Amino acid sequence: MSKKYVYLFAPGKAEGRASMKEILGGKGANLAEMANLGFPVPAGFTISTEMCTIYYANKGKLPETLKDEVAKAIQKVEKIMGRKFGDPQNPLLVSVRSGARVSMPGMMETVLNVGLCSKTIPGLIEKTKNERFVYDSYRRLIMMYSDVVMEKAAGIEPPKEEDGIRKKLEKAMDEMKKSKGVKYDTELDAEDLKKLCELFKEIVRENLGKQFPDDPNEQLWGAIKAVFQSWNGKRAVSYRRIEKIPDDWGTAVNVQAMVFGNMGEHSATGVAFTRNPSTGENVFYGEWLINAQGEDVVAGIRTPFPLNKYSKNEDNKNLPSLEEYMPQVYKELVSIRNKLEKHFRDMQDIEFTIEEGKLYMLQTRTGKRTGIAAVRIAVEMLKERLIDKKTAILRVKPSQLDEFLHPMLDPKEEQKAKPIASGLPAGPGGAVGQVVFTADDAEAWAKEGKKVILVRDETSPEDVHGMHVAEAILTAVGGMTSHAALVARGWGKCCIVGCKALQIDFEKKEARVAKQNPDGSEEIIVIREGDWVSLNGTEGKVYLGQLPVIPPDPLKNKWFITITKWAEEFRQIGVRTNAERPEDAAKALEFGAEGIGLARTEHMFFQPERIIHMREMILAKNKEERRKAVMKLLPFQKEDFIAIFKVMKGKPVTIRLLDPPLHEFVGTLLEDQDELEKLAKLCNVKVEEIKARVQDLHELNPMLGHRGCRLGITYPEITEMQARAIFEAAATLIKQKVKVLPEIMVPLVGTKSELDNQVEIIHKVAKEVIEQEKVKINYLVGTMIEVPRAALTGDQIAETAEFFSFGTNDLTQMTYGFSRDDVGSFLPYYLENKILPHDPFEVLDQEGVGQLVKMAVEKGRATRPTLKCGIWGELGGEPSSVKFCHKIGLDYVSCSPYRVPIAKFAASQAAIENPRPKFSAKSKTASKKSKK
Amino acid sequence: MSKKYVYLFAPGKAEGRASMKEILGGKGANLAEMANLGFPVPAGFTISTEMCTIYYANKGKLPETLKDEVAKAIQKVEKIMGRKFGDPQNPLLVSVRSGARVSMPGMMETVLNVGLCSKTIPGLIEKTKNERFVYDSYRRLIMMYSDVVMEKAAGIEPPKEEDGIRKKLEKAMDEMKKSKGVKYDTELDAEDLKKLCELFKEIVRENLGKQFPDDPNEQLWGAIKAVFQSWNGKRAVSYRRIEKIPDDWGTAVNVQAMVFGNMGEHSATGVAFTRNPSTGENVFYGEWLINAQGEDVVAGIRTPFPLNKYSKNEDNKNLPSLEEYMPQVYKELVSIRNKLEKHFRDMQDIEFTIEEGKLYMLQTRTGKRTGIAAVRIAVEMLKERLIDKKTAILRVKPSQLDEFLHPMLDPKEEQKAKPIASGLPAGPGGAVGQVVFTADDAEAWAKEGKKVILVRDETSPEDVHGMHVAEAILTAVGGMTSHAALVARGWGKCCIVGCKALQIDFEKKEARVAKQNPDGSEEIIVIREGDWVSLNGTEGKVYLGQLPVIPPDPLKNKWFITITKWAEEFRQIGVRTNAERPEDAAKALEFGAEGIGLARTEHMFFQPERIIHMREMILAKNKEERRKAVMKLLPFQKEDFIAIFKVMKGKPVTIRLLDPPLHEFVGTLLEDQDELEKLAKLCNVKVEEIKARVQDLHELNPMLGHRGCRLGITYPEITEMQARAIFEAAATLIKQKVKVLPEIMVPLVGTKSELDNQVEIIHKVAKEVIEQEKVKINYLVGTMIEVPRAALTGDQIAETAEFFSFGTNDLTQMTYGFSRDDVGSFLPYYLENKILPHDPFEVLDQEGVGQLVKMAVEKGRATRPTLKCGIWGELGGEPSSVKFCHKIGLDYVSCSPYRVPIAKFAASQAAIENPRPKFSAKSKTASKKSKK
Repeated sequence: MSKKYVYLFAPGKAEGRASMKEILGGKGANLAEMANLGFPVPAGFTISTEMCTIYYANKGKLPETLKDEVAKAIQKVEKIMGRKFGDPQNPLLVSVRSGARVSMPGMMETVLNVGLCSKTIPGLIEKTKNERFVYDSYRRLIMMYSDVVMEKAAGIEPPKEEDGIRKKLEKAMDEMKKSKGVKYDTELDAEDLKKLCELFKEIVRENLGKQFPDDPNEQLWGAIKAVFQSWNGKRAVSYRRIEKIPDDWGTAVNVQAMVFGNMGEHSATGVAFTRNPSTGENVFYGEWLINAQGEDVVAGIRTPFPLNKYSKNEDNKNLPSLEEYMPQVYKELVSIRNKLEKHFRDMQDIEFTIEEGKLYMLQTRTGKRTGIAAVRIAVEMLKERLIDKKTAILRVKPSQLDEFLHPMLDPKEEQKAKPIASGLPAGPGGAVGQVVFTADDAEAWAKEGKKVILVRDETSPEDVHGMHVAEAILTAVGGMTSHAALVARGWGKCCIVGCKALQIDFEKKEARVAKQNPDGSEEIIVIREGDWVSLNGTEGKVYLGQLPVIPPDPLKNKWFITITKWAEEFRQIGVRTNAERPEDAAKALEFGAEGIGLARTEHMFFQPERIIHMREMILAKNKEERRKAVMKLLPFQKEDFIAIFKVMKGKPVTIRLLDPPLHEFVGTLLEDQDELEKLAKLCNVKVEEIKARVQDLHELNPMLGHRGCRLGITYPEITEMQARAIFEAAATLIKQKVKVLPEIMVPLVGTKSELDNQVEIIHKVAKEVIEQEKVKINYLVGTMIEVPRAALTGDQIAETAEFFSFGTNDLTQMTYGFSRDDVGSFLPYYLENKILPHDPFEVLDQEGVGQLVKMAVEKGRATRPTLKCGIWGELGGEPSSVKFCHKIGLDYVSCSPYRVPIAKFAASQAAIENPRPKFSAKSKTASKKSKK
Repeated sequence: MSKKYVYLFAPGKAEGRASMKEILGGKGANLAEMANLGFPVPAGFTISTEMCTIYYANKGKLPETLKDEVAKAIQKVEKIMGRKFGDPQNPLLVSVRSGARVSMPGMMETVLNVGLCSKTIPGLIEKTKNERFVYDSYRRLIMMYSDVVMEKAAGIEPPKEEDGIRKKLEKAMDEMKKSKGVKYDTELDAEDLKKLCELFKEIVRENLGKQFPDDPNEQLWGAIKAVFQSWNGKRAVSYRRIEKIPDDWGTAVNVQAMVFGNMGEHSATGVAFTRNPSTGENVFYGEWLINAQGEDVVAGIRTPFPLNKYSKNEDNKNLPSLEEYMPQVYKELVSIRNKLEKHFRDMQDIEFTIEEGKLYMLQTRTGKRTGIAAVRIAVEMLKERLIDKKTAILRVKPSQLDEFLHPMLDPKEEQKAKPIASGLPAGPGGAVGQVVFTADDAEAWAKEGKKVILVRDETSPEDVHGMHVAEAILTAVGGMTSHAALVARGWGKCCIVGCKALQIDFEKKEARVAKQNPDGSEEIIVIREGDWVSLNGTEGKVYLGQLPVIPPDPLKNKWFITITKWAEEFRQIGVRTNAERPEDAAKALEFGAEGIGLARTEHMFFQPERIIHMREMILAKNKEERRKAVMKLLPFQKEDFIAIFKVMKGKPVTIRLLDPPLHEFVGTLLEDQDELEKLAKLCNVKVEEIKARVQDLHELNPMLGHRGCRLGITYPEITEMQARAIFEAAATLIKQKVKVLPEIMVPLVGTKSELDNQVEIIHKVAKEVIEQEKVKINYLVGTMIEVPRAALTGDQIAETAEFFSFGTNDLTQMTYGFSRDDVGSFLPYYLENKILPHDPFEVLDQEGVGQLVKMAVEKGRATRPTLKCGIWGELGGEPSSVKFCHKIGLDYVSCSPYRVPIAKFAASQAAIENPRPKFSAKSKTASKKSKK
């Protein structure tokens, strides 16, 4: 017997079941499951996803054997339904729908009413006594089929939607309605629709150069192929890329007997969720329409009716609910809803049709929901004993917690507004404010109590004061890991970057956006200083004017508190935060951070009273001068560390020594004559000399240049000053009985000798301070693993390092040879063309970069079993990366304060999915001891 | 019994032997060996190198047990020599000398005549009846001891040599000679020397604040410690760094009874080589002096006498030879020379002293020799059956072959000249020419038949035409892997880079060099256009004027031909060359290259008639325009490939597709209004538009930016054009019955998907050309492994790649996070302070970068056992790197044409030292087959 590709389903008897999603697709598998449960499912069959693969392997041809299988399946359906496909007297019509393993809503194609043709129309009219219904169905078939099969699947879809056949047919229908002076489709009578069908066929012939097919079998196979073809349609491909769905899964095709919601006043169609998908509330929630076919409900042509009292809103409160209009059918539907939830143990999204008072179930699937709803449903389903705790936790995507953590534009209002531009969603949440174009203006306006949005081409460390006071940041260039994006995300601030449509004129203080109108014309919108804009940073959308904002308060939300508390029972790795400002550290602690995984010391040097000494240090001509200048920074650094240690109350604080190339501190100096002169005076040299020195600092590839520990090695006085500041700060607090645990991290180490050089200085200073202050200071010295060579020689480096902290941003840059600042010229192309599955700066590349991390951990722990290993970077809060870190045995991940709850939650899920033997630093020692 | 640290030696009985160099040092071990051979060696003992380690571990203290051991050893020496150390009547004097495992000539300290003091002087005078000799010995002791022990070992050496105690004493002696009206030391009489000794002691007291020690034991221990201390002296440390000698080896101390060459007219001292160390000729060669102690011969105070007729030259031909002056002693010395060569089976460098007609041997060691001598000695010793073939080959350092491959400044004349500046030795050999400051001038002058040296701040690809016609290139900035260095080395052209003393004024067409005079004053030398300079590129020295040059002709040198032919019998890995110009390829073939390992296609685009189309392509606004422009380059590329394939006659040619960032092709465009306008006309756009586009191309880190296969992926028409040029060139030649084997290499691949993308294009074009031209073309497609991620995922990449070529320059850059262009700010410091043992761009970092290479080879061959693996880059010709490549199983290395003989020789040595099972691509398949 040859392989089976076609699976029948009908109430009480289906060849498939819910667990067969891989070959039946989600829709097919669930139709089979519902059929097996005895629900009223119209009979039909599913062509398996494997046939999709064959279809593409054979370049669009289907094997002959499939024709036989389908023919046999149709015979069975005919028998069950008591109608015959293509029969002039008692014709069976079918729907042909896609159905992938996971739901890809709206991404693939559907054709309804297949089988209607000049041969079957009279018989159906005779049988239903409803000529209007038949022509309404026929015009729908023509509309869908000509669009999906004759145009899209044939590959002749015009670039602009308005030139497509569907729009042309819609226009013809609109004209017909206009000429009849009616508003709704339902107001057209049988005669109108019959004429319309003739007109439609003529338009199809004229535009597509082909006759509309009048043979039921030709229609059927055209539709089946079109569904397979739609798997590689543009929308489907880009959806898969975003959702990380493999291309080789393929779609199944579901061919099912038509039932008709458009047979008159006792017919209807609807969609519903077994719980409220926005709020998660445990109430049946849905919409329906009388005398309609499925697509009408979601198409937005008519306002759908509320399913019941829970589904009423401002727009539909005066329309009849199904509960009121067909109480018996509604009761049956509620009973099915209850059984479905008990059976699937999750919130379901269903489709149903009522044909002359009889209810049919057309689909059930796990319902999409907001993060807020996901959390509430998970918590309540556990309380209803539908699911256990682990399942409840796994039901919520870690990223969905983000919704609790940021103010949002009110989704209802946002839905009504039209964005004027879009960019990359760099910092989540919503924000509203008045536009300013410089950091100084941002500060000035904010001081007057105004809410501002800072708009720049891109930002630099010198914009930080303005970024800090702004409600949000909007940049014209830069990617997800540009300066603006990093800083904003660190603060949990709304931010959109790479908004290419923005053309900023800083002199005029205005930005121009060229907006494409639906008619193809271009409109220039000018945004002037002070204009109000609203940003949705979660989706990267920019709106003109003020949209209402909803504030966050997760720690007062009982669902959020419950699910995160439950999750904590399972977590096996620590979560720290990246923070150098005490406020940020405090915020992270509130969210449960267990330490600081990265405090960058250079951010502390950009304030005006400090940067001048930094510059003095950089421009020093010899060691002595440099030492003098650098020591002027000591009191500032000490203050910084006291502040942050105080907040952290003895939790570990990983401090990274000076890292960036020196020219970052003098970048804008050449254009600032005042500052130049001030500095020249301070250094007692000529302005020209300073300029020359600044130009000397220019590097061709600063990322790979004189930075990180290379600075501390060539200028040991910098390391000495920083170490002194750390230990003196620690001593000061220890004397005040405040616990302190500094972990000093040497950046950009590539060889053990580099680390040795710096560690010697650090220990020397520690000894001096400890002797001089007469206190005991516990501290660790370790290194950032961010240069591939360090990972490769982790065994050697661990001889000196007491901890490894993986700096994934730089490690990714060097492992790929990608400059974060320059990937804009090819990375978008790579993602679009699937050269890369995702941006490696956003999602850890487990095969390459991850391999290095794993290797370093293993080699390092072979040398030093107690080696503490953590990771930080953009990925520290990215759920799949957190799970990888859990798997390879890291001790902690570190992320920005606002991602702490997400990282913790992801870590808990990882521990549930894949609990690991406790092989982290601490327990390794413990298990060693227990062996003795 | 406690561990032995002191080893006695005396004629016929020594506790050590030649094989004990690790603990006795080279000198001590060979003294013991000579003593065992019965040669007249003054008795003495060696304190082992292990004591040096103890000395440093104990912070400069020596254990008490050592004192006992030394005391016992002295007693034995006293007994053998019949004198007593510190005895007033019959005093024994000793020399105290260093001696490391390997020779570090002149790098550490020696003190002679230890034991002379007020107590022993009268007895020695009485015994020798030679007061002059005694005071001469005493003044030597004071000079050496005060310098070595009291100043250097005490750590109070002044920064300038002329402020040191030694110079002060020399000055006092010069004054004495002046006041006496004599020229040579030997002309001072006993009374003079006695006075001088008193004066010396006073100067010592005044300058060092201490009495000159008058106790023999104090002198002895002071000298022993000073020798240990000198192991960490500046010169010794920097010598070890250059010679890659580990710091923990330590030096031994040799304490030996003094014999005196300065006892009068029948006493003498000399040094000799058993063969001529410059030419290798098998003749005894040396110098000697009457009435002198060892240091006098090398110090250059008096012109040394020739040892024999073979040692005569212009300077010494009228001075008496030892052969003539003391025929008996000479005969004895010749007999020892012959025995030594037979015993040690290598050319020896010996020291001897004649005390009143009696010959004493003071040292023998393997003699340093020039490359030319090394080769001749190895070949001749084999013919004399002293050594076997493998030993002969291993006797020559691969780098020594370099001397045969380049013209050189005549060493004799060079020795007399003083360099005005020095830089990095980027391209070996010598060159003489007139200075020009632009590539265009270089070309113009060269056309007139002038020899020019091109002097630039740094070079760019647009200077290449000028570099090509120049005798040599001299740059003020840049490192060993700067553009100038790479290009020059590729051509085997003399080149000095990073000559920091040069201050070039391009407008005035002159360069200034500030030269420090011995008196501390500064002199400015101005070099104007047309001035003659001479460059020694092997050592990085720049001279004013024209020095004579010796031309190379290795393939006519019988010694060179013989040794390289012998070596070829052993070699197990292939050697290819890096070349894209047919002349270079031809040169490499002459040297025995077995293919091209890297032909860079971008070098072909810098000629004016090509670069304009390249620029047109870069500035194209859309795919069609770009395609049009790129196709204009097709005929040029095709021509290039035809030329190179023709030369290589079927040997494999690895062609790298376009690699550099596009802005390299438009770098100078912004300053060239003519070119801008020409291009604007060609592209039919405004000049402003071109400028804007050029500025758009600017990248922050171009090394990690839009280059390599990222270009070919985003602009597939470039890859298509290049592939077409390759295959059309191949087809053209195949039709002419010329064999062709292209290996097409995709650069900068980080993921398999990138390679897949490019390989698909290449295969498509191949198929088209093969069908259209109706020829069969054999070709391979592979990738450059230069991004760490590619090495880490070698198993995946080998699914597509048929070969891996390791690009060590970029792989090193990314593995270390070092930008070659920017390391100048810290790498010199790193090398000086031993943070790194050597520049990883010159010597393969086996632990880090090498680990990645090894990993990639193993992973790649696990997927594809026949995977061909090669390496190219600066390291491809570096002997230790070649040996590593042999060890890890690469199939070939590829280097610049002039390094081919060196790489081949190194590969042969590797095969001799460490023959490997044939696990390269070919044999792996073979062994698989044989299993069946």
